[in-house]
Amino acid sequence: TRSYSITLLPGDGIGPEVISVAKGVLSLAGSLEGIEFGFQEMPMGGAALDLTGVPLPDETLSAARQSDAVLLGAIGGYKWDNNEKHLKPETGLLQLREGLKVFANLRPATVLPQLVDASTLKKEVAEGVDLMVVRELTGGIYFGKPRGFSSNQNGEEIGFNTEIYATSEIDRIARVAFETARKRHRKLCSVDKANVLEASMLWRRRVTAIALEYPDVELTHMYVDNAAMQLVRNPKQFDTIVTNNIFGDILSDEASMITGSIGMLPSASLGEKGPGLFEPIHGSAPDIAGQDKANPLATVLSAAMLLKYGLGEKNAAERIEAAVLDTLNRGFRTGDIYSDGNTLVGCKQMGEEVLKSV
Amino acid sequence: TRSYSITLLPGDGIGPEVISVAKGVLSLAGSLEGIEFGFQEMPMGGAALDLTGVPLPDETLSAARQSDAVLLGAIGGYKWDNNEKHLKPETGLLQLREGLKVFANLRPATVLPQLVDASTLKKEVAEGVDLMVVRELTGGIYFGKPRGFSSNQNGEEIGFNTEIYATSEIDRIARVAFETARKRHRKLCSVDKANVLEASMLWRRRVTAIALEYPDVELTHMYVDNAAMQLVRNPKQFDTIVTNNIFGDILSDEASMITGSIGMLPSASLGEKGPGLFEPIHGSAPDIAGQDKANPLATVLSAAMLLKYGLGEKNAAERIEAAVLDTLNRGFRTGDIYSDGNTLVGCKQMGEEVLKSV
Ligand SMILES: CC(C)[C@H](C(=O)O)[C@@H](O)C(=O)O
Ligand SMILES: CC(C)[C@H](C(=O)O)[C@@H](O)C(=O)O
Repeated sequence: TRSYSITLLPGDGIGPEVISVAKGVLSLAGSLEGIEFGFQEMPMGGAALDLTGVPLPDETLSAARQSDAVLLGAIGGYKWDNNEKHLKPETGLLQLREGLKVFANLRPATVLPQLVDASTLKKEVAEGVDLMVVRELTGGIYFGKPRGFSSNQNGEEIGFNTEIYATSEIDRIARVAFETARKRHRKLCSVDKANVLEASMLWRRRVTAIALEYPDVELTHMYVDNAAMQLVRNPKQFDTIVTNNIFGDILSDEASMITGSIGMLPSASLGEKGPGLFEPIHGSAPDIAGQDKANPLATVLSAAMLLKYGLGEKNAAERIEAAVLDTLNRGFRTGDIYSDGNTLVGCKQMGEEVLKSV
Repeated sequence: TRSYSITLLPGDGIGPEVISVAKGVLSLAGSLEGIEFGFQEMPMGGAALDLTGVPLPDETLSAARQSDAVLLGAIGGYKWDNNEKHLKPETGLLQLREGLKVFANLRPATVLPQLVDASTLKKEVAEGVDLMVVRELTGGIYFGKPRGFSSNQNGEEIGFNTEIYATSEIDRIARVAFETARKRHRKLCSVDKANVLEASMLWRRRVTAIALEYPDVELTHMYVDNAAMQLVRNPKQFDTIVTNNIFGDILSDEASMITGSIGMLPSASLGEKGPGLFEPIHGSAPDIAGQDKANPLATVLSAAMLLKYGLGEKNAAERIEAAVLDTLNRGFRTGDIYSDGNTLVGCKQMGEEVLKSV
């Protein structure tokens, strides 16, 4: 048996419910493939704020660092919305990404044939969409300095941030993106605002340079405003997209909504070495927390990404992916993806159905 | 007779064709309302680069400044795409916005009942969409300093930009947005990334403060990633949106594509005083330039915005808007909005049909 240590960060809202389902699925799929897991649950986000006064306790970060992979539920909620910046759940998430040095965020947006009706896009536009956004996650305007508040010559208050990228930061995310495209349909679209921003001009120049290492991948460039349009006009034109932290935040959310089922979408955040961070792209949904209504499949599929990208356990990953599809084919749906003729289930029962299919 | 001087900036690609149509429509609608126009055509964008070596000649800017309003076609094209930054057509446009101090960019995105099928969104999601994006246009990361290229401690090249807003810049765009919302359905959604960026925290704080002056307008706040999703999920939830320069660039383009007919969408850019700048939101479409295929209606509707917002000539503006609807009702369509059962026309004939309806 191979054995791995997994840090579980249930977090806030529906986080604990979906993590509990994903943990069960991981265990079963693992055991069927000769894999053993040691799970350690740690506080994070609002839960950690209430417990310890900070959104990412040192113990949580060091446990995460020492494990083989980290699975996060969701963070945030109304209760902490007006906290000062360093006491926001979101700040804990940014500290975790920085602390784990997970610079590459992979966000697939796939329209499953079973769920094509969930999209607000016309069927012929939505069906067959299968794209991957590779978002730079530890640089750019999220972390750039100088940042803060000050006053200008007129004595007025100003707020400012710095969008900044160094060559090596662009090169490494570009390589991840080209490698990702290579495993898909060998088409990479780099998104920037190089007609206005110097940081984007360097981005475009470096991505173009790295492309020489990947002659088998077709590289195109697109401005971010156009990309936001093209995702609505014809999302099927995209295979792999690579972009900076803030544009990736916006475009990956837009792409996920195009699928119509954000309760289904996982993500992986990877570094050069060390454990990866895996989480559903949806939020903590405080309005339905604790009501057994959440869709656990995004977290279950995040566990599959953990196996594939984090641990190199491809068979166990595919076992989980197949189980999710089988469960959908058997007609089970949580409320967010429910449509006529299917069976409405809660979070727990959805988990049990997936277990039957594993 | 009232008389006004209008600077026409045809620009590149399809720009000259659509400006020529809009000029004719302006003249006729004006004359029927007792308005006389003096038109002056000036070079701008790639056309100006070829003629004078710069994308915004001094003569063009001063002519624009001295006129009562400026109507722009479109700028840019493959030919100048690899120019250095200060020799890009886009740089001319940014200089024009800065030179005219037009800090408030109004971009309506309306789904006309006649064109609801053009949207890639399902009919029930698209029909009735009628929103206005108020984008800050002369500040933020587009103009913020410091910016440029340099090297970091490791001797690596870096590219950087500054996202920066001062209180007065936020206050004035917020007031325009509240005034705009007041003339619509009194709902304003301010979009920012205040969970991460200090510039956005100040933005949210000031917009909230200005809201006290407009107790009759309902103010909400939304993060930009969520806004990008909500525009796809349920665009009808929005009435008026206010946001910074870069988020406005992205979201207004996304919103325009949701209507499915970007060939129909106008924009207005307004300052504290002095002439406003009016332009279609579509680009220069070099692939169809000179082929009499362009849809001139976005520019015609921009001329209507010029009358309404630039000159306070509401009657003439409404005459043009009504003429455009009447022309659509009579079944005339350019290629970009064509659907079965209608009459396909070119740019010129579309212009002639609008003239008949004025
Ligand atoms: C919660 C927030 C800080 C975060 C981000 O902006 O990165 C989220 O939107 C995401 O995309 O994971
Ligand atoms: C051409 C470009 C500089 C411009 C912008 O980014 O503002 C355009 O995209 C727009 O939205 O008018």
